[in-house]
Amino acid sequence: MTQHVRLCEVGPRDGLQMAKGMMPTADKVRWVRQLAEAGLHEIEVGSFVSPKLVPQMADTGIVLHQALEVEGLTVCALACNLRGAMAAYEAGAHVLAFPISVSETHSHANVGKGTDAQIAMMAAIVEWVRQQPRPMRIDAAVATAFGCSLEGVVPAARVASVAQAVVRTGVDEIALADTVGYAHPAQVRDVVRATQDAIGAKLTKLHLHDTMGLGLANALAGLTEGIRSFDSCLGGLGGCPFAPGASGNIVTEDLVFMLESMGYHTGIDLSRLLAARALLAQALPEDPLRSGVAAAGIPKTFQERRERVRSGC
Amino acid sequence: MTQHVRLCEVGPRDGLQMAKGMMPTADKVRWVRQLAEAGLHEIEVGSFVSPKLVPQMADTGIVLHQALEVEGLTVCALACNLRGAMAAYEAGAHVLAFPISVSETHSHANVGKGTDAQIAMMAAIVEWVRQQPRPMRIDAAVATAFGCSLEGVVPAARVASVAQAVVRTGVDEIALADTVGYAHPAQVRDVVRATQDAIGAKLTKLHLHDTMGLGLANALAGLTEGIRSFDSCLGGLGGCPFAPGASGNIVTEDLVFMLESMGYHTGIDLSRLLAARALLAQALPEDPLRSGVAAAGIPKTFQERRERVRSGC
Repeated sequence: MTQHVRLCEVGPRDGLQMAKGMMPTADKVRWVRQLAEAGLHEIEVGSFVSPKLVPQMADTGIVLHQALEVEGLTVCALACNLRGAMAAYEAGAHVLAFPISVSETHSHANVGKGTDAQIAMMAAIVEWVRQQPRPMRIDAAVATAFGCSLEGVVPAARVASVAQAVVRTGVDEIALADTVGYAHPAQVRDVVRATQDAIGAKLTKLHLHDTMGLGLANALAGLTEGIRSFDSCLGGLGGCPFAPGASGNIVTEDLVFMLESMGYHTGIDLSRLLAARALLAQALPEDPLRSGVAAAGIPKTFQERRERVRSGC
Repeated sequence: MTQHVRLCEVGPRDGLQMAKGMMPTADKVRWVRQLAEAGLHEIEVGSFVSPKLVPQMADTGIVLHQALEVEGLTVCALACNLRGAMAAYEAGAHVLAFPISVSETHSHANVGKGTDAQIAMMAAIVEWVRQQPRPMRIDAAVATAFGCSLEGVVPAARVASVAQAVVRTGVDEIALADTVGYAHPAQVRDVVRATQDAIGAKLTKLHLHDTMGLGLANALAGLTEGIRSFDSCLGGLGGCPFAPGASGNIVTEDLVFMLESMGYHTGIDLSRLLAARALLAQALPEDPLRSGVAAAGIPKTFQERRERVRSGC
């Protein structure tokens, strides 16, 4: 089992789309650069959705264009339909993230069509992308995979079955998303196992929210099941329109602290990562940033461990 | 492996001793009653320490006396020396909690003597308590077991060795305490295993802080190793004098949500537990209360799960 864990920073998309404030485009670009310089090699920089519905994402094309200039950075963008996927491709995205909700009700609320129709849309997108001259990785996010604020319980068998149908469309990778943050560790174990049984190594990633304070415990449960890729968000920014009072994504800083402390390799420099909070705090003064590590400071034991690892003791 | 998990609410002690405000005695008593009515059968109601050093605990005797009237409640009190232990016994405490720090430096800072001297003190207390007519359970908390803000890394072998010496004094139970909140899940696994190898089932409990946001992930790691008892604090109140900016204990509400969701039995009614926050918030308006479940509300899926369990599906 590899000890490398791949993190995808979704702050510029999932974080900013729910923010009270609007981060200026130039700040977004500087922030993406800072995140990349801290060692985040995969960043979801925005989404190609209606600027009327999500005004915070209206400048995604410009941000993406600038992000492509950052050496070594894998640039991801989200889209919810063929038109958005085409825009992501035309803009030069390396990775397309596409949500497919297991909950019919959430799917209708989120993208205006049911689960099967969204899977058919995914198939059309894959077909179109594969005909283009440039390759683009296609990641499907199986949303509301751990419960839905509208439908309640989402059975693991249903998640596995949707994941299987999505894999048949020819996507490259599948993520399971705890869209509203209802997951608990035993459920993460069960749903990940059911999905692995159905689609094997195509399941690569978990997208977790920290709504109930269980985000990192759920990440740990995923790690135990062999998951080696996670979405996370600097400062835990974000939230969920269907869970009032809910907090956002799992906190990148604390996740990196946990993973590196446990001996996993993320390639991320925690001090530089913490420094990237300043720009975010300045641009969005009304949006509270979370992070235990940021509040308490990197403990002495963390540095010592890294030094021991370096010296081979 | 039993599915019952025993929680000890340490809010009235560990939470209030670090609070900015002073909770009035009558409110403390009402709060202890509310916590007990929510199903918390073990509560650390205060500490018998110098009121000059910890003025918030000056009324521990009165609170303890009232707490003894709550039917079925196991009443715990903390003391740091023989005099305090005698006071706890005289007041009628069912359980004495006694801290013994693995870190020499922290031990001196916390109780004014080194680790060995504190173990000798424990032995004297055990001897004295066992000669009294009434039994009193004696729990030793092995503090700074996962790192120290003053000494840095605390080796697992040293923790196990201190735990072994403490067990020889004749105490009933041993808890491992992450006093400053530096623990990570792999370390919890390693230190718990090393301690279990040294003292077996005498290790019963973990006392975790959420400083780095890893509190519940660490609790999960403990559960995996067979730990079935935890300290926690309503609203995650508390903190650590040696870790500025650090947050407090793991949050009782979120821990109960996690455990009950995972199928463990705590005996605690989550709705009533959340209701017990009101008094705390009112009495300590300057002390922010944490809890994902309190902020987002108990999700639909939690109720449904309990109903399924009840109906046997």
